[in-house]
Amino acid sequence: MIRFKNGRVLTLDGGCEVSRQEVWTEGDKIAFVGVPSDEQLREAVFEREIDLEGNLLMPAFKNAHTHSAMTFLRSYADDLPLQDWLFTQVFPMEAKLTGEDVYWFSKLAVLEYLTSGVSASFDMYFELDDYVKANTECGFRTVLCGAVSGERANAKVLEERYLKYNGIHPLISFRLGFHAEYTAEYGLLEDIGELAKKYKAPVSTHNSETAKEVAECIEKYGKTPTALFDSLGIYDYGGAGFHCVHFTPEDMDIFRERGVYAVTNPGSNSKLASGIAPITDMLAKGVKLGLGTDGPASNNALDMFREMYLLTVLQKLRNSDAAAMPADEVLKIACCGSALAMGLDDCDCIAEGKQADLTVIDLNRPGMQPLNNIPKNIVYSGSKENVKLTMVAGRILYEDGKFFVGEDAARIYARVTENFEALKKR
Amino acid sequence: MIRFKNGRVLTLDGGCEVSRQEVWTEGDKIAFVGVPSDEQLREAVFEREIDLEGNLLMPAFKNAHTHSAMTFLRSYADDLPLQDWLFTQVFPMEAKLTGEDVYWFSKLAVLEYLTSGVSASFDMYFELDDYVKANTECGFRTVLCGAVSGERANAKVLEERYLKYNGIHPLISFRLGFHAEYTAEYGLLEDIGELAKKYKAPVSTHNSETAKEVAECIEKYGKTPTALFDSLGIYDYGGAGFHCVHFTPEDMDIFRERGVYAVTNPGSNSKLASGIAPITDMLAKGVKLGLGTDGPASNNALDMFREMYLLTVLQKLRNSDAAAMPADEVLKIACCGSALAMGLDDCDCIAEGKQADLTVIDLNRPGMQPLNNIPKNIVYSGSKENVKLTMVAGRILYEDGKFFVGEDAARIYARVTENFEALKKR
Repeated sequence: MIRFKNGRVLTLDGGCEVSRQEVWTEGDKIAFVGVPSDEQLREAVFEREIDLEGNLLMPAFKNAHTHSAMTFLRSYADDLPLQDWLFTQVFPMEAKLTGEDVYWFSKLAVLEYLTSGVSASFDMYFELDDYVKANTECGFRTVLCGAVSGERANAKVLEERYLKYNGIHPLISFRLGFHAEYTAEYGLLEDIGELAKKYKAPVSTHNSETAKEVAECIEKYGKTPTALFDSLGIYDYGGAGFHCVHFTPEDMDIFRERGVYAVTNPGSNSKLASGIAPITDMLAKGVKLGLGTDGPASNNALDMFREMYLLTVLQKLRNSDAAAMPADEVLKIACCGSALAMGLDDCDCIAEGKQADLTVIDLNRPGMQPLNNIPKNIVYSGSKENVKLTMVAGRILYEDGKFFVGEDAARIYARVTENFEALKKR
Repeated sequence: MIRFKNGRVLTLDGGCEVSRQEVWTEGDKIAFVGVPSDEQLREAVFEREIDLEGNLLMPAFKNAHTHSAMTFLRSYADDLPLQDWLFTQVFPMEAKLTGEDVYWFSKLAVLEYLTSGVSASFDMYFELDDYVKANTECGFRTVLCGAVSGERANAKVLEERYLKYNGIHPLISFRLGFHAEYTAEYGLLEDIGELAKKYKAPVSTHNSETAKEVAECIEKYGKTPTALFDSLGIYDYGGAGFHCVHFTPEDMDIFRERGVYAVTNPGSNSKLASGIAPITDMLAKGVKLGLGTDGPASNNALDMFREMYLLTVLQKLRNSDAAAMPADEVLKIACCGSALAMGLDDCDCIAEGKQADLTVIDLNRPGMQPLNNIPKNIVYSGSKENVKLTMVAGRILYEDGKFFVGEDAARIYARVTENFEALKKR
């Protein structure tokens, strides 16, 4: 067992209170939460005791929408209008990607997630075998999101992947999903609705990211993307919508009724000038929420601290109300809501029997002082600088700035650069 | 001399190019920038040679608007409407502050600035003797901004401070300034205009932070705050306006003509729901710009990375244009523009003879990889995690997470907590 002692704990199991207690992990699970008795301490066998020195142990963050392997395009072509960026920069480069590229570019993303206290990603990309290899070798948890597009026949590809990747490894799962309405033929959407019913499974996809996307969908189908998906049974068993920036009250009703999570991506939506999602309206309607960074080509960081800050301050701006979107709510979305949006029901909080996906926040840094209110400190002043340790499934993968992922960070940086240089020449 | 070698350098002396060269410092100044000859290397005597290992040396950031000592109120009362926050939380607490409180609370701010690569602050607060002591003991550079309010007689107080604090210490200067139009009697504003003329000196103040402030000024004087100040000669020798959120084209014309810097505070303006400043309009009009965090009670971090990111993405959102506010422009504002807004003409860039206010950005971190474009990496992906070293006036005050400010960080944290607890009981 690993023992975390002498620290503060934010379990997020219900409320947002910080308390003085211990957490013990055994294998990949949380074995004990509380103040141990002398007898418990006598009987316990610890392989390691970690003195938290007053620092905070909390659930790791879950990144509920990303395209991890896009690290190679970070800062490659920013400050461009969206269409130019996508069609002249991103798509031509992606067309040349090999599986080996995806392997190295994904490993770089895993390193960055760990520096931001993230234990799991909900990831939409291709070359999945290589992506799975990169993540499992590092010991990182990932939920693959189906990303098919185009013609009806691709529903079969989606089904094959669903059956192949679920159960392939304890750290890997796969959820039904497709890229977006605007890249899918109607037949494909119909068949995905059938798959949802066949497997009684949630379906996740990009939804209403830009005003143009919604307007064109209404022109084509007479419905918003959300209403269209719902009419086809795609949301019959829930799922997640990524972005949800241009959302109507009726879209929100559908999400609430179907239990679909709106996964918001404030960094990407700001940087690409897509807009500010109506998050406080969704909360008022009872829509469930998750938080994600989107890919590193459009953010450009994979940093849940920055996302949390943006989530709250953009809602304050949008509502002209400094009281909008309190910090406690944001923390719960980033840890618990995001986990549940990805189907990681056993990774959402600190409780006995849950998966040991944890992070230690260094409170002994100037930006975390004084300790007037620790949750608010994390949301309003936290940064990667404050991440002292990240544990995934009971394994410490990051501690005091160093990575324990089976490979030197320097080698990963070098291979990312080499592979991108080679890709550019292809 | 201190030698920085084997690294990359972003001088910001003109353009935004990164090059392979060396920087040497001697005393408080930059002594050499370039690729040294064998002869230069033979003759030089280095007290320390720092191997940058490929990392980036750049000018330190300058925080061009803050109230440093407000660290004690960080996370004390967030998520409240602005008026409640100010009148029920902030003002009653500030009324009880002692000089010793300001001393400790300011030292905490200095620590945080150093973690964010900041070498200087433009600071508006009170208990200046204690504030000066805190900063000079740490070796941190600060420009005091006059903060008088109320009656005409306080112009004399301002003049006394101007004469007292300028020249008191090489790291300290003082600029004429006052709190804001809405806290100043007309007679005080008149007399400050006279002071500007008497000393041929720039004047800095809060300006057009909220819509209410501007509306009430127009109601009272028939003019915006900017037009009012200009009519009284307050801007005859330039200065700085803090916030400038609700700005008219005519206000911008006055700023450009008078050479007044608009110092933007996107974090605070977002968190307090004040609005998004029309920065791209100002740039198009030729208004000079600086960047600041505002105080830690309203931000809540003292983090120039977050401000830079917000500065660019909020302009992209405001203009619905992903190409708005490119990263290079943002970097120049955060380093050079901010320095010039504070009158630190010899701290704006890396060049021989300039003050040695420098920071080293750790590029060997996952969020900085690959090195497609280093300035964009800093603006779009940078965080405190990437600050490896901060030097102020030739002295290294922060390196590899440790502080060299003449006092243990732990003692500063403890004294901040003790003093705030005592203050609450007064």
